[in-house]
Amino acid sequence: MAIKALVLYDFTAEPGNNELTIKEGEMVTITNQNIGGGWIEARNSQGETGLVPEEYIEVRNVDPGSGRFTQSDFDPFAYTAASRTSNNQMSNGNDPWSPQNTVNEQDSRLSGSAARQSYARNSWTVVEHPQAYQGPGAVDDDEWDDEWDDLNSPGPGSAEPEVEETGGSNKAEAQAASKKINLNKFPSFSRSGPEVFLLANLPPRGKDKISVCMGEVGPVWLYPSLQMDCVVADPKKGSKMYGLKSYIEYQVTPSTTNRPVNHRYKHFDWLYERLLEKFGSVIPIPSLPDKQVTGRFEEEFIKLRMERLQGWMTRMCRHPIVSDSEVLQLFLTYKDEKEWKSGKRRAEKDETVGVMTFSLIEPEAPELAVTEVEQKCESFSRFTKAMDDRVKELLTVGHDHWKRCTGPLPKQYQKIGKAFQNLSTVFNSSRYQGEETLTNALTATGKMYEEIANIVSEQPKKDMHFLVELNNEYKSLLGCFPDTINVHKAAIEKVKDSDKLVATNKINPQDKHTMAKRLSNMSYSLQAEMNHFHSNRIHDYNRVMQLYLTEQVKFYEMAAGLLLL
Amino acid sequence: MAIKALVLYDFTAEPGNNELTIKEGEMVTITNQNIGGGWIEARNSQGETGLVPEEYIEVRNVDPGSGRFTQSDFDPFAYTAASRTSNNQMSNGNDPWSPQNTVNEQDSRLSGSAARQSYARNSWTVVEHPQAYQGPGAVDDDEWDDEWDDLNSPGPGSAEPEVEETGGSNKAEAQAASKKINLNKFPSFSRSGPEVFLLANLPPRGKDKISVCMGEVGPVWLYPSLQMDCVVADPKKGSKMYGLKSYIEYQVTPSTTNRPVNHRYKHFDWLYERLLEKFGSVIPIPSLPDKQVTGRFEEEFIKLRMERLQGWMTRMCRHPIVSDSEVLQLFLTYKDEKEWKSGKRRAEKDETVGVMTFSLIEPEAPELAVTEVEQKCESFSRFTKAMDDRVKELLTVGHDHWKRCTGPLPKQYQKIGKAFQNLSTVFNSSRYQGEETLTNALTATGKMYEEIANIVSEQPKKDMHFLVELNNEYKSLLGCFPDTINVHKAAIEKVKDSDKLVATNKINPQDKHTMAKRLSNMSYSLQAEMNHFHSNRIHDYNRVMQLYLTEQVKFYEMAAGLLLL
Repeated sequence: MAIKALVLYDFTAEPGNNELTIKEGEMVTITNQNIGGGWIEARNSQGETGLVPEEYIEVRNVDPGSGRFTQSDFDPFAYTAASRTSNNQMSNGNDPWSPQNTVNEQDSRLSGSAARQSYARNSWTVVEHPQAYQGPGAVDDDEWDDEWDDLNSPGPGSAEPEVEETGGSNKAEAQAASKKINLNKFPSFSRSGPEVFLLANLPPRGKDKISVCMGEVGPVWLYPSLQMDCVVADPKKGSKMYGLKSYIEYQVTPSTTNRPVNHRYKHFDWLYERLLEKFGSVIPIPSLPDKQVTGRFEEEFIKLRMERLQGWMTRMCRHPIVSDSEVLQLFLTYKDEKEWKSGKRRAEKDETVGVMTFSLIEPEAPELAVTEVEQKCESFSRFTKAMDDRVKELLTVGHDHWKRCTGPLPKQYQKIGKAFQNLSTVFNSSRYQGEETLTNALTATGKMYEEIANIVSEQPKKDMHFLVELNNEYKSLLGCFPDTINVHKAAIEKVKDSDKLVATNKINPQDKHTMAKRLSNMSYSLQAEMNHFHSNRIHDYNRVMQLYLTEQVKFYEMAAGLLLL
Repeated sequence: MAIKALVLYDFTAEPGNNELTIKEGEMVTITNQNIGGGWIEARNSQGETGLVPEEYIEVRNVDPGSGRFTQSDFDPFAYTAASRTSNNQMSNGNDPWSPQNTVNEQDSRLSGSAARQSYARNSWTVVEHPQAYQGPGAVDDDEWDDEWDDLNSPGPGSAEPEVEETGGSNKAEAQAASKKINLNKFPSFSRSGPEVFLLANLPPRGKDKISVCMGEVGPVWLYPSLQMDCVVADPKKGSKMYGLKSYIEYQVTPSTTNRPVNHRYKHFDWLYERLLEKFGSVIPIPSLPDKQVTGRFEEEFIKLRMERLQGWMTRMCRHPIVSDSEVLQLFLTYKDEKEWKSGKRRAEKDETVGVMTFSLIEPEAPELAVTEVEQKCESFSRFTKAMDDRVKELLTVGHDHWKRCTGPLPKQYQKIGKAFQNLSTVFNSSRYQGEETLTNALTATGKMYEEIANIVSEQPKKDMHFLVELNNEYKSLLGCFPDTINVHKAAIEKVKDSDKLVATNKINPQDKHTMAKRLSNMSYSLQAEMNHFHSNRIHDYNRVMQLYLTEQVKFYEMAAGLLLL
């Protein structure tokens, strides 16, 4: 008997995240409860399987023998299929760009994307490890890496009982409580949102700071003299709990120390959570590469995940503010387990997170008029929304082309090749003299077409792949802008209201000035971030387009060369 | 009210002939009765339209206003779609290669292909011009060329009342009567077939002869010292009946005289009928390019028909026996209307037609053992059958590829091009400095992809077209072999039976010797024809493959060149 669950709320799958769209009142079958992070893998009545938020469903019955992974589902390029489906869904009302995510929106029901954001932010706190459901089957489940389990339910041999250490669980509880508000009332950022910063008593200045300076293009981040970089390489299978649990560990080598450190996916995820919590309001922090439920040890998947982790780390290292942060430095340069653990604890206790991060901004520029702030913000919003649309369009076209290039097109070339060879075979049977030149040429042409079929189907991996990967990265990055921009919009609204607030004695004129000054700071940071975004975007697209065109030219030249032989 | 008709017999459409498969008992709508040649255009209940043999259906009601052509159906490449459908049908029991077409087959029901052959042979005699159905609409129908009407129902201004001239109609009636036997009892070739020749009193030798000599590869036709050729060009619209009827006239210029003569499609068809009647048992005479019902004056169609008439004429001119025949010479070199008409009458009166044409063979070689004759015949049968299969395979793949290259593939390249250009437009709106190089490159790439879309969709016309045309020609040619080979098989059976015939006093030993000698003659001619076929085949496929590959290489080089710009 399988584990069944009732869907309590609608949830719309996010593109490329192996998620499953579910509707309130629907029954689903739990196929894996061991995902962690507040996610559960479920199968709907149409047989589609994907992740759903744990809290959106209610388990009805339990089969201790189920919940095993199937390898047949493995598709390292599944993101393309998923992104295509959900591009359509996105335009049907689950658009993170839609006004429903602004602070004025009173609808307390979570949109799929808001829930997802909340989940992402909360995933490290709301983890419940459903050990009870694992059943006897779990003991030989060591082929799979349950990347979450050791975080909250350390086995007897676990070397990392981090959360349970002194202070850790209290902190986690406190954060979980504050996060619950976000989770259930996400659009009401206004309560815990920019206002808090606009009039808050700022915490005492630590050594952390976010420096904006004036560049040729306007406000820019203060870039370090040497750009940090890192290499993610050498994935190795490790195991713990006497070999019962296994996982993949990546070697991460920063250019600053050139000394490798080892990290598992869950460590990257921990870093992502910290960066999101700390910088999410100021800087769009793109999510990590997809959670992958099945086939986690497939070589191709590991390679793809590593490539994506590399892309994500490169983006983080390239960002002057993020790369300068204590938490990223810890992640890249910790010397031993002790330093790692104490660093983790310190990072988790950081109070200057969320909108309070704006307090770290050090602008050297004069106060801006609120209308100018608003215009800039609107213009960034328009640009990122428009780019998001175009990136999704390119991903859809890219996916279609990929499918054609790996499916029908090479099949057709194979058929052409086969048809020439078959004709050659018949001709050869004529026993007519002087036939050989023709039959040899026909056979050779047939074989060339089979070769062209191969190069056609291999081609997307050489060019379209990088175009698709970059656009997926940008899709993820652009998906963070609405939240970041909404923080600014909320602050702008507050500042625009400040005259009224003064008139009604809710704030005094000094408060009004503070709010305007702080809004300017926010605006400088947003402009700096946009300028950073633009310069990276130009660099990234230049690079990938050059690569794409070079490989396309190679492809056509190779085909011509083959036929000329 | 439309003209309805009841289908009396099953009829299976021949690939690429605009024919319609009909089932006994089905009701169809007559869409055009003015096709001629024993064909009628009809539409079935699924809305599919095509030609059906006139005698297979029974008209039930008549609407004098209907029967007009619609131009929207015009598709000069319709042969590809048709050939694909009927390739499948061919394998489902309507295969002209199936044993049901041999003389031993007693089934008096006509197979689609046998009926077609008969129709083709009879088309000039069974024409009935359904003037009564044309109605008032016909008067402004002069845009269309009714290529048959003036043959049997000359209008007041007609300059060609050929059939009605003295002797013409009697001859036509006599032939129609004798043809009726063929039509209804086609498989019973044994009565009017090879036996007639094996023991016939041969007609007195005229100047016509078919010379076989021994070449390096075995028996070969006697080739003329100078191969004749001709050019079909300069299609011109002509009209008659005070402009009520119009038609297309082609200029045909033989290499021998270099003096052009004018011919309409119906003249080519007349020539085809004569050649089929005279040589059909000895030499496969491929049918003319498709009858085309609608849009006969579309420029592209006229160009395509001219190209196909050229291909057909070239094949006829290249054939030493056909090119030497009085009727082809008449067609190519008549000096005036008078010579043309008297030549036509003479050709129509020719008695040495059908199997009697074997009597014109002049072999210089010794008598062959019947087993050897049989082996050769079997081996030719196998080869032509196998080649027919492979040619159809190539046509199917070619058609699929054509469809992809003119449909989804360029659409996809256009979409890619559009996506790049759209991204460029958004990027351009950033107003970030240093954007131009990227946006210009993206726009250029987008335009290149639109250009690639164009060259992809134009490509099949440059290469696949010739491959498809050649294979269509060969499909038509190969489709004639079963009948030719069956004549030989029937003769072989008779000769193998000759001992028994002698024993039962049905023939005398001298007859037996005559039969064997004449079978040898037949075999020499078949071998000569096969050798002619092989040498032409090698030449044709070499030429078309070279062209195909050259154009494919050009295509890939052009694409690479575009992207390199």
